[in-house]
Amino acid sequence: MIFSKRKTVRFAHCDPAGIVFYPRYAELCNEVVEDWFREALAVDFHVLHEQLRLGIPAVRLEVEYLHPSTYGDTLEFTLRVREIGNASLTLNLIAWCGEQERVRIQLKVVMMSMDTLRAVKIDDDWRAKFAAFQE
Amino acid sequence: MIFSKRKTVRFAHCDPAGIVFYPRYAELCNEVVEDWFREALAVDFHVLHEQLRLGIPAVRLEVEYLHPSTYGDTLEFTLRVREIGNASLTLNLIAWCGEQERVRIQLKVVMMSMDTLRAVKIDDDWRAKFAAFQE
Amino acid sequence: MIFSKRKTVRFAHCDPAGIVFYPRYAELCNEVVEDWFREALAVDFHVLHEQLRLGIPAVRLEVEYLHPSTYGDTLEFTLRVREIGNASLTLNLIAWCGEQERVRIQLKVVMMSMDTLRAVKIDDDWRAKFAAFQE
Amino acid sequence: MIFSKRKTVRFAHCDPAGIVFYPRYAELCNEVVEDWFREALAVDFHVLHEQLRLGIPAVRLEVEYLHPSTYGDTLEFTLRVREIGNASLTLNLIAWCGEQERVRIQLKVVMMSMDTLRAVKIDDDWRAKFAAFQE
Repeated sequence: MIFSKRKTVRFAHCDPAGIVFYPRYAELCNEVVEDWFREALAVDFHVLHEQLRLGIPAVRLEVEYLHPSTYGDTLEFTLRVREIGNASLTLNLIAWCGEQERVRIQLKVVMMSMDTLRAVKIDDDWRAKFAAFQE
Repeated sequence: MIFSKRKTVRFAHCDPAGIVFYPRYAELCNEVVEDWFREALAVDFHVLHEQLRLGIPAVRLEVEYLHPSTYGDTLEFTLRVREIGNASLTLNLIAWCGEQERVRIQLKVVMMSMDTLRAVKIDDDWRAKFAAFQE
Repeated sequence: MIFSKRKTVRFAHCDPAGIVFYPRYAELCNEVVEDWFREALAVDFHVLHEQLRLGIPAVRLEVEYLHPSTYGDTLEFTLRVREIGNASLTLNLIAWCGEQERVRIQLKVVMMSMDTLRAVKIDDDWRAKFAAFQE
Repeated sequence: MIFSKRKTVRFAHCDPAGIVFYPRYAELCNEVVEDWFREALAVDFHVLHEQLRLGIPAVRLEVEYLHPSTYGDTLEFTLRVREIGNASLTLNLIAWCGEQERVRIQLKVVMMSMDTLRAVKIDDDWRAKFAAFQE
């Protein structure tokens, strides 16, 4: 399965050159991951943090900026699971504008206990949820 | 030479887990590069864009999050030039808190004409400025 | 008529206290105004700025924070036109969570030419569009 | 006494019109208040929240945008205490560029317990600290 989510490029995302300010893609990436958890995995971030006491801090982020985007553009983000480690999860996101790849993102997070602030093993339930988006 | 710049981690940088929200490091990276241009290369971003009609859009960003930071922490960013291409520049930044490496960043930008929106060759003057920060 | 738009409070909007960081409401306000222009007035901000060469810079913003919001909350923003001046427009926005008013915003903008950077008279077409959202 | 703090307008603060995006002033306001607490009142926000278990959420923000600013501008923010209530504090900030007033801000916060999430009386120690910046 591939998770996909449409985002409008906003005035607030753009810099004086009129194109998306590159750090904004890291924010958009986080939004898409948050959407994936809520909409596809059925676990809202608030529930994840406050009830399940789990967090998913980033350990590595790679962003390739292929083509610039401007406000008014509609970007279609796709999200795939690339790798499920013992406590880590690696995601691949691509922002498409029509058939043009605009940005490619690889994000590695770890599953962490909010109580101990230490990495925790991804259990079988989570592993199954994540694996459904692995190709 | 190494450029170094102190940044205070602010309340605004932190998320509900109380640690720096990972996209904020991309913003801090941009701040340090802006500081480097103004303070070390003597070219303010406003002059760069509006007078010299040059921009330096990102083409690739890699961030490794080694240890979390919280508000009140003082981070010492170091910036080195890693590679000077025909039209591209690759920078290495490290955010230190005391002797602990918190975050490692590699940013590749291209020099672009603001008029044609195309990459332009890095001329000898710029090359010399950048090379002074290459080891 | 009242324009209304649903927004999810995101992890990125919240601070270490776990509630929306107050400057984020100014960003959400701008998003709702941008949505109103695109969806209700049929003028995308990109068209407004780049083709019509008009901007609407803020001259006054007032925000009352009545109750805190946290990530996962759904806010329903309502937007009404309060006053249409010669070159200015005053908007009232309210962020509702269910039947609870969370935030009240009053934003005054001016219509400005992007070429002269001076205020311009709101013409009859714009006046009619805006008046449709005045009560 | 007046607290004053210099801020550089950054590329990241500016929008496609090349001027400071108006929500960014709310962030800059928060930065100046954070600086005032740390530098003038000798209480870091981290200590305030985590050790003293106090927060100062905003209840009202008013911003008047008098003149636009662009990146590279140096703004001198002044901060004065206007009113000290039972549990509330009202601050006046002005952003100056040379002798030109660019932005005027009035921010009302309440002192809140982070444990009960309720307003708490401003005690005599805090009252004295704040009063030193009242004219």
